[in-house]
Amino acid sequence: MKIYEQKIAPNARRVRVFLAEKGLLDQAEFVELDLQKGENRTAEFRGKNMLAKIPVLELDDGTHISESVAICRYFEALHPENPLMGSTPLEQAEIEMWQRRCEIYFMNLVGMAFQHTSGFFADRMTPIKEWGEECYKGASKFMHMLDKHLADSEYVAGDSYSIADITAMCTVDFSRVVQLRRGEEQVNLNRWYEAVSGRASAKA
Amino acid sequence: MKIYEQKIAPNARRVRVFLAEKGLLDQAEFVELDLQKGENRTAEFRGKNMLAKIPVLELDDGTHISESVAICRYFEALHPENPLMGSTPLEQAEIEMWQRRCEIYFMNLVGMAFQHTSGFFADRMTPIKEWGEECYKGASKFMHMLDKHLADSEYVAGDSYSIADITAMCTVDFSRVVQLRRGEEQVNLNRWYEAVSGRASAKA
Repeated sequence: MKIYEQKIAPNARRVRVFLAEKGLLDQAEFVELDLQKGENRTAEFRGKNMLAKIPVLELDDGTHISESVAICRYFEALHPENPLMGSTPLEQAEIEMWQRRCEIYFMNLVGMAFQHTSGFFADRMTPIKEWGEECYKGASKFMHMLDKHLADSEYVAGDSYSIADITAMCTVDFSRVVQLRRGEEQVNLNRWYEAVSGRASAKA
Repeated sequence: MKIYEQKIAPNARRVRVFLAEKGLLDQAEFVELDLQKGENRTAEFRGKNMLAKIPVLELDDGTHISESVAICRYFEALHPENPLMGSTPLEQAEIEMWQRRCEIYFMNLVGMAFQHTSGFFADRMTPIKEWGEECYKGASKFMHMLDKHLADSEYVAGDSYSIADITAMCTVDFSRVVQLRRGEEQVNLNRWYEAVSGRASAKA
């Protein structure tokens, strides 16, 4: 099977870290696309994902799965051992809750802050600087909330490492593109970040 | 158990329709909050969800789960019969893919179009009209893409009704608040909409 991605993209990294944690990184051939050159916007690639986004998983029978978490869910369901999306109904729900919080109020905001303030994709969207600045403020606020939450929680979604930690870690690293950084006073966030970044999977 | 919600909110409706499809609607007591009056922004409610969003599921032991899809996943895992999130790994992945497409490129865009053009929550956010208009355009584009997709697919994520249909249906109905409506020429979308809206669960 193949995974079409761009290595520097945070969503692509989420999938690689997930596969590394599962011990499945060598199962897929990774195909690098240059998004700035628009290699994801060709008719051929839109045949793989009509929304022209990466990453896309291509199975050997030609089936395509896009959306990072959908790709992760496929591998989680195929290989349920060492679960990263929870086992019991309550664990599954708590991980889904934190995963979505980290996406909606953090990762997506950093992404929009970047696109709307940098003009990186100005050839294919309308950057609105004021909106980018609002997104930056929201992401910064979430980082503070996460620091507070991690005072009472070893990992983002409880006592075990999960996909929510992957999303949060990839977003903290991606935040550098908008000059949003962890503060020295955010001791809980920093303790957690050192732990998750120290795992071998973080280098995937 | 209790579910804190506001009946007119599209995310709250997603959970009710999901529970109705599962035959579980009578398991929870629904508690109505007035969001415009800020009943979700009290210290008491932030104790249930630090992000002050509805819906929130409160279990009898005092555990809280927020984020609509996390609440749905809890019930799906507890009651796996009549699955709405797929059974095989591929079904789970395809439903997750379409669910996320319907959320990211449709529901969230309609929500932001509404908030940024109406000033509905102007006391707690900065409405940016230009951004609201961009979101409207994106949502309209997705509706066209969905119409095209439904030419070859009975439901949003394949041959079976799933949580992706619930999200898409709730969003089509919510789109009226920004005057985004299905076109007569969108015959596939209209065929699908009549089918999903005709289910008893749509009235939940």
